[in-house]
Amino acid sequence: MKDYTELYKQELLQHVVPFWLKHSKDESCGGYFTCLDRWGNVFDTDKFVWLQGRELWLFSMLCDKVERRQEWLQMAGHGAKFLKKWGRDEQGNWYFSLTRSGKPLLQPYNIFSDCFAAMGFGTYYKVNPQEEWAQIARDTFSNILMRRQNPKGSYSKLYPGTRDLKNFSLPMILCNLSLELEHLLDKETIDSLVEEVIHEVMEVFYQPETGLILENVYSDGSFSDSFEGRLINPGHGLEAMWFIMDLGVRRNDAALISKAVHIALRIVEWGWDTEFGGLFYFRDIKGHPPQQLEWDQKLWWVHLETLVCLAKAYELTGNENAQMWFRKVHDWSWNHFRDSQYDEWFGYLNRRGEVLLPLKGGKWKGCFHVPRAMFQVWKTLEKLPQALETK
Amino acid sequence: MKDYTELYKQELLQHVVPFWLKHSKDESCGGYFTCLDRWGNVFDTDKFVWLQGRELWLFSMLCDKVERRQEWLQMAGHGAKFLKKWGRDEQGNWYFSLTRSGKPLLQPYNIFSDCFAAMGFGTYYKVNPQEEWAQIARDTFSNILMRRQNPKGSYSKLYPGTRDLKNFSLPMILCNLSLELEHLLDKETIDSLVEEVIHEVMEVFYQPETGLILENVYSDGSFSDSFEGRLINPGHGLEAMWFIMDLGVRRNDAALISKAVHIALRIVEWGWDTEFGGLFYFRDIKGHPPQQLEWDQKLWWVHLETLVCLAKAYELTGNENAQMWFRKVHDWSWNHFRDSQYDEWFGYLNRRGEVLLPLKGGKWKGCFHVPRAMFQVWKTLEKLPQALETK
Repeated sequence: MKDYTELYKQELLQHVVPFWLKHSKDESCGGYFTCLDRWGNVFDTDKFVWLQGRELWLFSMLCDKVERRQEWLQMAGHGAKFLKKWGRDEQGNWYFSLTRSGKPLLQPYNIFSDCFAAMGFGTYYKVNPQEEWAQIARDTFSNILMRRQNPKGSYSKLYPGTRDLKNFSLPMILCNLSLELEHLLDKETIDSLVEEVIHEVMEVFYQPETGLILENVYSDGSFSDSFEGRLINPGHGLEAMWFIMDLGVRRNDAALISKAVHIALRIVEWGWDTEFGGLFYFRDIKGHPPQQLEWDQKLWWVHLETLVCLAKAYELTGNENAQMWFRKVHDWSWNHFRDSQYDEWFGYLNRRGEVLLPLKGGKWKGCFHVPRAMFQVWKTLEKLPQALETK
Repeated sequence: MKDYTELYKQELLQHVVPFWLKHSKDESCGGYFTCLDRWGNVFDTDKFVWLQGRELWLFSMLCDKVERRQEWLQMAGHGAKFLKKWGRDEQGNWYFSLTRSGKPLLQPYNIFSDCFAAMGFGTYYKVNPQEEWAQIARDTFSNILMRRQNPKGSYSKLYPGTRDLKNFSLPMILCNLSLELEHLLDKETIDSLVEEVIHEVMEVFYQPETGLILENVYSDGSFSDSFEGRLINPGHGLEAMWFIMDLGVRRNDAALISKAVHIALRIVEWGWDTEFGGLFYFRDIKGHPPQQLEWDQKLWWVHLETLVCLAKAYELTGNENAQMWFRKVHDWSWNHFRDSQYDEWFGYLNRRGEVLLPLKGGKWKGCFHVPRAMFQVWKTLEKLPQALETK
């Protein structure tokens, strides 16, 4: 029997953070490499702004919440300098990707680059409180709010007016971002934003009839019987539910927490693959074939966000079903995603749980979900009056 | 022992064409349904312009090359009317997708909508020679030539000047389109275009050092060590090689045919999955993890285009290796993609050859690759002096 708290803490500090510290720093051009093979060798040098912002955030967060280690602070500063210099266009929009040396490759069509940049600089400011970092975070955040009704701008391929769906990702991430930037924004802005995103997530995208959260709905919240409208991404829903639980704690709102726990348990049950275990990446709510060919794959972030969600659900409510599911998802994840021979975790498995891409980092997987989840589960379970142990 | 010619002919006329005739006609709104489940039930009603143009082409082609059946001619006309009325914006660009009743859903960001519309109307004109169909085909074709240096136009997310790669798909498809529209265009236009695309495919995208065809290269033909630059799509290369063989026949150019056969055999060998059989969808030329999560899946069109390519290779040159590979790909494809209980073929299998999406048609699979390949293999093997038989 082992204490889960210890497991997650050790994994974070001994097998995950050291991997990124050792392999992801681009000493000659600045910023972070993220395309790293099983052993940490760089196989591609492009810099993806999502992942640059996320790694900046992660090392800043460790300094803020774990301890102020010089090597972590330097690692954060290394990314901040690169992003500040190369990351934005003249209007302050964050590019999607850059070459190794920082030249823009893909235009700022994706507002999540901005979200993770704001999150990164906002947290970096906490541990290195120079006004310029706060300013970048604030400017980026205002720009996100300005762009959020039409986040893709001129890059949107939708013909306006025919089927104007809104997407779950932005309100979901704003739940988290509003808490991350609380120290930089005035209370009124935060409060009204929090109110609004809780409403969007829990009343517009959440569907009480099925107990599930849709990825895309009409502007009035109604169902669209189309590929986009029928799409369910269980990992998204589960990640959003822990953001909501955090907001519930902030507002001291037991009803909101309880509703989030209820939804989370419904999603994890519905998303679970009863044949091979693990959670599906995508499913169609009507059971039709989804358009995503990768629908049946098992992705690291889905499982790690689920673990955070279930740990919080159990810690906040003592729900036994949440504990049972935490143990089940823990076992499957540690048995399949964890690399028992080398540091960091695999990201992409096929339906059977076999490694599909033997990388530790790539275009979408960086220094973020694995260490954030390790930290979150560690700190969440630490609050339990009695240690939770493996069976 | 069975004659392959008979197998492909029977499959086309008894199990594939009847499926689309019966299930894909939208009697009330016009055009074709393509999202059809295993049994032919419609599970989504959006109209994807690629697939509308392709089905128009297929039924027109059958009337032109097999026999002038009234039900085929009517089916073609049914699609032509819908596309003519709803398919284009005011500048004559073809939308990517429409609602069931024809309202535009996705903007004309994808020039392949135009390619398949031109191909469809051009061939429809052969069997229903009214000037308006020829005019649509010609206008669309000029528009393609005008747009081809920047096919995505304002929807391109590339930051200009950093890494300007050109993509293989357009020159590849122009190889085929130039022959399909030969009856509508002046000889000079066709000849210079053919010259140019043969050069692009066989000297720019083809890499003699590896014997493979890259999907994306720098404008000067050089290699880009990036996710896009390292990408190989074996099915694309093999489909292009039969287009090149057709051009070789047109030009009576034995050296070109021989080079295409040589390249095809190299690609099929390199793309073959020695563990589970079948051809991979994508691979990285350096063996790195590709960004496409679906890289190891087995797709119908890849295998069907390969069969056409190998049948032509064998018929044109008598190459025994081409015959061996034809038999091998035939066996794997008929055993895995063919639905032994119901009409039409499955499209998407996982690496092991198990059905991943139990559909017969969707957003990308329509009435095209299966029947075209059946027709092509039938007509190609028919030319052999002695029937090729299954073992």
